[in-house]
Amino acid sequence: MMTSQNRLPQLRKDAITGRWVVFSPARAKRPSDFKSKAPATASDHRGRCPFCSGNEHMCAPQIFRVPPDPSSDWKIRVIENLYPALDRNLLKDADFDGGGGGGDADVLRGFGFHDVVIETPDHSVHLSDLSPREVGDVILAYKKRVEQLLTFDSIKYVQVFKNHGASAGASLSHSHSQIIALPIVPSNVSARIECLREHFDQTGKCCLCEVPSNELLIDESAHFVSFVPFAASSPFEIWIVPRDHSPHFHELDDNKAADLGGLLKLMLRKISIQLNDPPFNFMIQTSPVHTSVSELGSTHWYLQIVPQLTIVAGFEVATGCHINPVFPEEAAKVLREVHVQM
Amino acid sequence: MMTSQNRLPQLRKDAITGRWVVFSPARAKRPSDFKSKAPATASDHRGRCPFCSGNEHMCAPQIFRVPPDPSSDWKIRVIENLYPALDRNLLKDADFDGGGGGGDADVLRGFGFHDVVIETPDHSVHLSDLSPREVGDVILAYKKRVEQLLTFDSIKYVQVFKNHGASAGASLSHSHSQIIALPIVPSNVSARIECLREHFDQTGKCCLCEVPSNELLIDESAHFVSFVPFAASSPFEIWIVPRDHSPHFHELDDNKAADLGGLLKLMLRKISIQLNDPPFNFMIQTSPVHTSVSELGSTHWYLQIVPQLTIVAGFEVATGCHINPVFPEEAAKVLREVHVQM
Repeated sequence: MMTSQNRLPQLRKDAITGRWVVFSPARAKRPSDFKSKAPATASDHRGRCPFCSGNEHMCAPQIFRVPPDPSSDWKIRVIENLYPALDRNLLKDADFDGGGGGGDADVLRGFGFHDVVIETPDHSVHLSDLSPREVGDVILAYKKRVEQLLTFDSIKYVQVFKNHGASAGASLSHSHSQIIALPIVPSNVSARIECLREHFDQTGKCCLCEVPSNELLIDESAHFVSFVPFAASSPFEIWIVPRDHSPHFHELDDNKAADLGGLLKLMLRKISIQLNDPPFNFMIQTSPVHTSVSELGSTHWYLQIVPQLTIVAGFEVATGCHINPVFPEEAAKVLREVHVQM
Repeated sequence: MMTSQNRLPQLRKDAITGRWVVFSPARAKRPSDFKSKAPATASDHRGRCPFCSGNEHMCAPQIFRVPPDPSSDWKIRVIENLYPALDRNLLKDADFDGGGGGGDADVLRGFGFHDVVIETPDHSVHLSDLSPREVGDVILAYKKRVEQLLTFDSIKYVQVFKNHGASAGASLSHSHSQIIALPIVPSNVSARIECLREHFDQTGKCCLCEVPSNELLIDESAHFVSFVPFAASSPFEIWIVPRDHSPHFHELDDNKAADLGGLLKLMLRKISIQLNDPPFNFMIQTSPVHTSVSELGSTHWYLQIVPQLTIVAGFEVATGCHINPVFPEEAAKVLREVHVQM
């Protein structure tokens, strides 16, 4: 396989996001040298950490816990965010607000939900330290909360995401994820649904049902495939896609959640070993709550993992076009070959 | 005026980018406390800095210099990037490449230009330290290089941008900007042109010709207006917009460039004083090379300044929807009131 150094730069357009990515070998180190200089090590605020077992009184209200029986210790807690981006109490008046001027720009009251999933009671445990079954239980907690949020008529999209490491946006090092339920469909989501629909109209197939090439494949499980996308916007970006066509994340069952738990753990361990515990984000890319019947055939949810190894600068902010120094085929090879003890 | 603490969260849709922004007072400090914790101080690599006067041999080839007469010292140099994202030598074969598989994803050879504008020969001088006229000369250097790049048939869009500070993507601290000429129109640009066209179709007016409300205004010059956009995606984001309708940046004349130089210097000094020399990006948001006659009435270039004060995390990456803790009216007030000695 050619290394980045002797490849020519290339532009690839992502069929799912509609965005161009510049693959730029002149800006690359060797892929194996692409380790994080700022590993996402946990800080030592154990005694004052609101997410630790025993500090529940420091948190905003709990929504539910796993297991539900309060006589046993909790393993997962889903709670309100103490500093929510949106206000869950504005439901009654969630329509047009109009305050603030701005001509034709749309304005809405900031109704919505911003919740936290505490993935473990133990401060020193990362998500990838849990067993495949326990990671699956975290995924099932996401699913349960998403299903609750879908019952609100005003909610149009629910975003599940995890920030790991301060430079990836985690303000607390205790392992947690977040769920934001929005009264609008975000532009990236609309653009993705539109791209997938166009692909379906042209080919009669769902773009994400297609099996990626062997060069891009990292691993597979009974129900999921993990690979580096052909037009990855970041080095070592990973997508985990359900094999069966499925528009909405919350459709997954217990069996598939446990299977996904194993593959997600494996991918997180791989990037941690190969890239020196880099800060990362993962995001569940699902479909809007109200997806038209005609779109259900073309939309397909997936989980996207983005290690934070490069800086998004003026060019990327302006254009939406990322510069990626690592070709996806090389990133996939590095991630395939790293050995993980589960 | 209300402070962020007693305002309710709000969603605003930007009429120009089509993106929703969440304004989230619960996550805010006081606007006046919103200073950078990582000021973009210059490092001390003076002797080894390739952009310093005397070290021209360490750089990739020069494209032009200001003044052109080689018997006098240079004030501005426009050079090739030593680590270009795109390859200027692939012109002959810039059509479909096809290497690498990927089904329906589009692939192009990485033809394009990636240039650097060294704004001063002096390592310790920032762009905002130059006189208004000298900043205008930097802007005229951008214009001259953009006009050269437009002569290549394969070039579809030219992005001018500046990264200030390591965390905003500046790999060298010596004051410089960059110009990337692309063989494609980036998705953010297409989306912006489309939003502006829709606004025009609905109202018969160019969205950016409209004067912003006094609450959002920061300052004005003979030919430009600076303000915080109504749906700013980042705290203290600033747009500088030409008063006269103008689709393309490279249409500005010497007189307007000098005028813009003064207003740009003032805005950079304001964010430096008020926000503790934050890392920032600025980007010239212009129109694609080939803009249809029907779109020339609705597109209008502007310069966007984004101080890097918040972390873009999983939510923003997934949705394209930013969470901004500072309401634009408050940011504009803070920036209006800060006193600058020019």
